[in-house]
Amino acid sequence: MTAADLVPAEPAEPHDATDAEDLFGPVTQAHGVFSLPGLLPRVGVRLHDSVVDVGALARRDGLPWADALASPSLNPFMALGPDAWAEERDWLSTLLTDPGRAVEVREASYPLGGPAPVALHLPVEVADYVDFYASREHASNLGAMFRPGQPALTPNWTHLPIGYHGRSGTVVVSGTPVRRPVGQVRPPGTDEPQVVASRRLDIEAEVGFVVGAGSPLGEPVGVADLPAHVFGVCLVNDWSARDLQAWEYVPLGPFLGKSFATTTSAWVTPLASLAAARVAPPAREHAVQPYLDDAAAPWGLDLRLEVRLNGHVVSRPPFAGMYWTAAQQLAHMTVNGASTRTGDLFASGTVSGAARDERGSLIELTWNGEEPLVLPDGTTRAFLEDGDEVVLRGWAPGPDGARVGLGEVSGRVLPARALR
Amino acid sequence: MTAADLVPAEPAEPHDATDAEDLFGPVTQAHGVFSLPGLLPRVGVRLHDSVVDVGALARRDGLPWADALASPSLNPFMALGPDAWAEERDWLSTLLTDPGRAVEVREASYPLGGPAPVALHLPVEVADYVDFYASREHASNLGAMFRPGQPALTPNWTHLPIGYHGRSGTVVVSGTPVRRPVGQVRPPGTDEPQVVASRRLDIEAEVGFVVGAGSPLGEPVGVADLPAHVFGVCLVNDWSARDLQAWEYVPLGPFLGKSFATTTSAWVTPLASLAAARVAPPAREHAVQPYLDDAAAPWGLDLRLEVRLNGHVVSRPPFAGMYWTAAQQLAHMTVNGASTRTGDLFASGTVSGAARDERGSLIELTWNGEEPLVLPDGTTRAFLEDGDEVVLRGWAPGPDGARVGLGEVSGRVLPARALR
Repeated sequence: MTAADLVPAEPAEPHDATDAEDLFGPVTQAHGVFSLPGLLPRVGVRLHDSVVDVGALARRDGLPWADALASPSLNPFMALGPDAWAEERDWLSTLLTDPGRAVEVREASYPLGGPAPVALHLPVEVADYVDFYASREHASNLGAMFRPGQPALTPNWTHLPIGYHGRSGTVVVSGTPVRRPVGQVRPPGTDEPQVVASRRLDIEAEVGFVVGAGSPLGEPVGVADLPAHVFGVCLVNDWSARDLQAWEYVPLGPFLGKSFATTTSAWVTPLASLAAARVAPPAREHAVQPYLDDAAAPWGLDLRLEVRLNGHVVSRPPFAGMYWTAAQQLAHMTVNGASTRTGDLFASGTVSGAARDERGSLIELTWNGEEPLVLPDGTTRAFLEDGDEVVLRGWAPGPDGARVGLGEVSGRVLPARALR
Repeated sequence: MTAADLVPAEPAEPHDATDAEDLFGPVTQAHGVFSLPGLLPRVGVRLHDSVVDVGALARRDGLPWADALASPSLNPFMALGPDAWAEERDWLSTLLTDPGRAVEVREASYPLGGPAPVALHLPVEVADYVDFYASREHASNLGAMFRPGQPALTPNWTHLPIGYHGRSGTVVVSGTPVRRPVGQVRPPGTDEPQVVASRRLDIEAEVGFVVGAGSPLGEPVGVADLPAHVFGVCLVNDWSARDLQAWEYVPLGPFLGKSFATTTSAWVTPLASLAAARVAPPAREHAVQPYLDDAAAPWGLDLRLEVRLNGHVVSRPPFAGMYWTAAQQLAHMTVNGASTRTGDLFASGTVSGAARDERGSLIELTWNGEEPLVLPDGTTRAFLEDGDEVVLRGWAPGPDGARVGLGEVSGRVLPARALR
């Protein structure tokens, strides 16, 4: 973990769609890593606008995973596997709701944005980072813009969840400023590439899945086995420099157009907290290969995302419509025998719905910059300008009408370094 | 590190081109990680056909980096940075050649393949793995085969070192068997994909560069600064399933066709040991952008590689002809502000020369399988068969006519798992 992982925490602003709702009540159990001045970072669970030092309470209760919760990342606890996750979940469910323990919990709670400066850290030591491309609408929109005159979807798209490896070393936690990248571009209509500060800096609103319990080399993970491996869900902003990407990405895929920063939420919401949000994925165009056939255990998730640009909601991407699910992505990622490790992060790809105001990237919202967004303050945006702030939020239906929160992702754009 | 990282070590067979030569004399100083039964893995330096427990000797000499050398990977020592590397190099140069210390060195040496079973481990805890595509001949050959009817080189190829991120979790050490991957393919002339055990399993002979001292987010590494960051060089076999790759790789690049295994040598030869091998890179087709302009500090390297298939030399790829150097690759990888970390591994891409017997992959040597290799025992190969063993070796000119060895990479193909 580096200094860049550490940013002052702020309490969440009210969620647009749910201003009156509490997204981080006891049903959410979002896990993160926090620190207080002079103390080592450790795991905390968010409760309303506070973080609870659950390791301290678990130690008091003599629980076997208390030491793992005292670690500076979620990895040691996640590595204990799904039985430990379930035990901790049951314990938390009681702890956070039992009036008899309310004083204890309050004494182990630290308000976010309160007088004692609580810092939130990157919650996961990221092993491998894989980014998928699972929204049919997004892939169709990008294909139309990047490869005009060709079919928007490549022939493989409906047969397998396309993905690629990203840079795990530049995954940063929500709140980390993002410096505008510099790189090679070849502007349309020119033959000579140039080195510029990106003029087409974009966001991608995604959902990330964190592998808690890995799988050995040579053993594929079945499409029904998601909960045995994935501990939880975060939100991800996969910042993208479209001009760098367009010039570099043929034939080996995106590289510098993506590798300068990927921001995750400070909170990982356990997959088990999203049980009430499971839905059937959309109908597939044709039968898929058996290793991807999820009819018996579909893992569509009704997650509702929101993208704010400088405080204004510009999109509400619906995750339920994603063509490929996380379960299919994990099965695909390992069908060749590849292992997975504690800390692997795989992201859904940009979440875009069919409606214009459901698109999860600016390049789609502004159709390649040709139809700029007009914000309520009268300013317009094709792509991001220096100083712009992007915030992603999300929630899911929980038990008994409650809502389950996904941690927010925020980031502000810093000006590019001076070109030499 | 997993059990898969640990394999019994064998002494190297004599090198084809240098049967009479010792590639691991005191000028090479190749670093690895070894263990003896019941003892923890630690750093060792190869001397002839033995490994020297240099941490024990450094502790005896009271050297400040002795503890780092007692670690189970090179990372803690590499993280100390280039001044420590230079101090250790000077110390080793005396230690390994001073007759007055010969008894001490011998007593701290363990013969590879000797009576005490020395195990060699993955020498580096790999952070991010990036694979480049720096041989013009290889890129042209692959382009002609993968994209017939289009220009073999994409327009960006001569302007920037194309690369992509690979899977660091499946990097394994030399000697680890490689199971034939299973995955989706769409055979030529068909419309329906199938799930098969790869029928076009291939190798790629590459040179890997190991980052010892990282660089912070937002600060690009200059093209002259390779030695401040890269500790050393290894050999890499980037196993490739060409049939999986061909179906999946548009538009986001190689994924499952590569992610099942990447094998590195057990030995990392310090960059400083290769000073005598520095050569001018080939003439570039046109001027490159300033951040890639290496005229003042070119980092071509005269490394001579050898590919053996079942004991027969099938290729001798010349690294000196690579169009893009490691220095340019590192500058490119960070021009957008991406950070690097101790343990990052970036590989050159397949090393292929202009002559047929200088090509570094079977798909090139057999021209897409159409011109199978005939081995001296009369067998033929288009791609790898179960049981085949591939060994990569390499060396470089050293000081005073000595030769500097690169650690060998070996791997045997296991049959695919049963399809379900």
